[in-house]
Amino acid sequence: MKIGVIGAGQLGRMLALAGIPLDMKFVFLDPAPDACAAVLGQHIQAEYTDQNALRQLAEAVDLVTFEFESVPAETVAFLGQFVPVYPAAEALRIARDRWLEKSLFRDLGIPTPEFANILSQTDLNQAVERIGLPAVLKTRTLGYDGKGQKVLRTPADVTEAFADLGAVPCILEGFVPFTGEVSLIAVRARSGETRFYPLVHNTHIEGILHLSIASTEHPLQAKAEDYVGRVLKQLDYVGVLAFEFFEVDGGLKANEIAPRVHNSGHWTIEGAECSQFEQHLRAISGLPLGSTARRCHSAMLNCIGSVPSTEQVLSIADAHLHHYGKAFKAGRKVGHISLCASDPATLEQNISLASNLLAQR
Amino acid sequence: MKIGVIGAGQLGRMLALAGIPLDMKFVFLDPAPDACAAVLGQHIQAEYTDQNALRQLAEAVDLVTFEFESVPAETVAFLGQFVPVYPAAEALRIARDRWLEKSLFRDLGIPTPEFANILSQTDLNQAVERIGLPAVLKTRTLGYDGKGQKVLRTPADVTEAFADLGAVPCILEGFVPFTGEVSLIAVRARSGETRFYPLVHNTHIEGILHLSIASTEHPLQAKAEDYVGRVLKQLDYVGVLAFEFFEVDGGLKANEIAPRVHNSGHWTIEGAECSQFEQHLRAISGLPLGSTARRCHSAMLNCIGSVPSTEQVLSIADAHLHHYGKAFKAGRKVGHISLCASDPATLEQNISLASNLLAQR
Repeated sequence: MKIGVIGAGQLGRMLALAGIPLDMKFVFLDPAPDACAAVLGQHIQAEYTDQNALRQLAEAVDLVTFEFESVPAETVAFLGQFVPVYPAAEALRIARDRWLEKSLFRDLGIPTPEFANILSQTDLNQAVERIGLPAVLKTRTLGYDGKGQKVLRTPADVTEAFADLGAVPCILEGFVPFTGEVSLIAVRARSGETRFYPLVHNTHIEGILHLSIASTEHPLQAKAEDYVGRVLKQLDYVGVLAFEFFEVDGGLKANEIAPRVHNSGHWTIEGAECSQFEQHLRAISGLPLGSTARRCHSAMLNCIGSVPSTEQVLSIADAHLHHYGKAFKAGRKVGHISLCASDPATLEQNISLASNLLAQR
Repeated sequence: MKIGVIGAGQLGRMLALAGIPLDMKFVFLDPAPDACAAVLGQHIQAEYTDQNALRQLAEAVDLVTFEFESVPAETVAFLGQFVPVYPAAEALRIARDRWLEKSLFRDLGIPTPEFANILSQTDLNQAVERIGLPAVLKTRTLGYDGKGQKVLRTPADVTEAFADLGAVPCILEGFVPFTGEVSLIAVRARSGETRFYPLVHNTHIEGILHLSIASTEHPLQAKAEDYVGRVLKQLDYVGVLAFEFFEVDGGLKANEIAPRVHNSGHWTIEGAECSQFEQHLRAISGLPLGSTARRCHSAMLNCIGSVPSTEQVLSIADAHLHHYGKAFKAGRKVGHISLCASDPATLEQNISLASNLLAQR
């Protein structure tokens, strides 16, 4: 089985590490000359809209998947003429646009923060009147890790906000006084069979995921599975999908989906019976799904900007290092640390050790 | 860290899969044009005695390790002039020669089958008189998977036996009425710190390993650790070493050592906290050792000659497939299946399913 991957960053790299033992071969398309997944397969170095390159990719592989959701719609449509594409164009169209995404949640009866479609400063002024402040203005497309968004606290913040974000289509979202952020990693097979990992508690620092802890019997697990299941079914989704929620008053409000393997699922490599990476590959290539069961108390910490020395990381009991082989750069995800423990207290202790290591950088 | 590996088969492949997340890069030396580890690093395609190639390897890497023990002594010595080599020349010298190996066991007070050094038919005749029949005649070097050996049951079997095995130095071993075969996978750090995985029960078919099951609290664990520890210390060993024993009358008799990652340790990829492959890389590169704890009831079955369809393998609950990407050929190890279970009964059941799948080939 030959898998084409649009994008050759760490997600592509970890997909390949999971797929190579299944006799899968990988062809990546990524414009970066030093794309870090390239060492694990063939690398077509080209822009995502380069039709010759896309054609070359399609001819080399059995199916194509994506490492990120902001891939241009025309890329997906073009590829779809020649080769099966998972997830399908419609899922990508929805997931890459925050307004379409929230509208889908609302249509499916999934609670969301209040939101409005913002195509002008006038739209924004009216929406602020309805939703109130504080609120968050986000570009509808292309934002990630806290980029492409602006928190509006006072009327003065509102005045130039639409222009400040580039006068592109935006969404205004009501501020949600959340007590926590959780994500659910789900996988759906071509047959429609769906499986869910345990809910993950996520902590962000400056808009970037810092820490994910796999929960044990979270009281909102069933509710989250219900919500995510509705979206998967509606989109006739195939593959792994991550769904981020705010925890509010003992309930959930939908934040966003990522139609792909997700940073908050990296703990599954060591922490679950079958990792999200293997699971995604199984789903898109029509293989039986794996178990989503947790096999230890598990957490993941991101290495942002740089990676501590391997020696320091591995001196923490039952720590595993995932170095992405990327150049170090402030704010860039360049690796992660996985922790496994037999009890929550040991896990907490090792999270502290890892967190201290990362803070020293 | 750049690691040189002599040999680029499945062991090198699995070493690389474990090392890439630690930001290790691999350079393999192997004469086979289609060596299956080559996709995970640089491949120097050359004979193991090609000094230009060895020089090229030594200059490209920080240290060198081995995928197999029958590498020529001059190769090890030559490399050792330029770059650290783990395990060291002395360990390889002993491990590649069954007579030196058994002599070392005897010197260290580790029980072995009776044995004799056979350099001629006369030696053999005398040894048979002392040890009796049945006995096994093996070439001192280069035998593996049941090759290079001959079971002697009757005096007629003895007459031409030395010539039959090529009139090369041999060892005669007394027949051991064993009740089982177990192996202990151990790792020793540069610092001398030593860790052991749980004893593994091994079943062979036609001289080739078929099934390994990780034991739970084996009564001979401490005894095996004592024996293996003596050898590791004597050799000032660095890296993973596998030690195979016969179970005899509730005790152990040493069969042989493999100074490398070993087929009976493949279960550790999913079944232990830190796999034998990561463990070997940690040891030889001076990193802290990982945990050898079992994290499920775990077994491994070899795929010999061919690999069942991925779909069939993954339809077994909590099965993982490791396809080596090698051409299928009768008697060749081309993949393995790992099984994880929460209890021994489920493991047994899944071993049966996997065993049936393999028997259909």
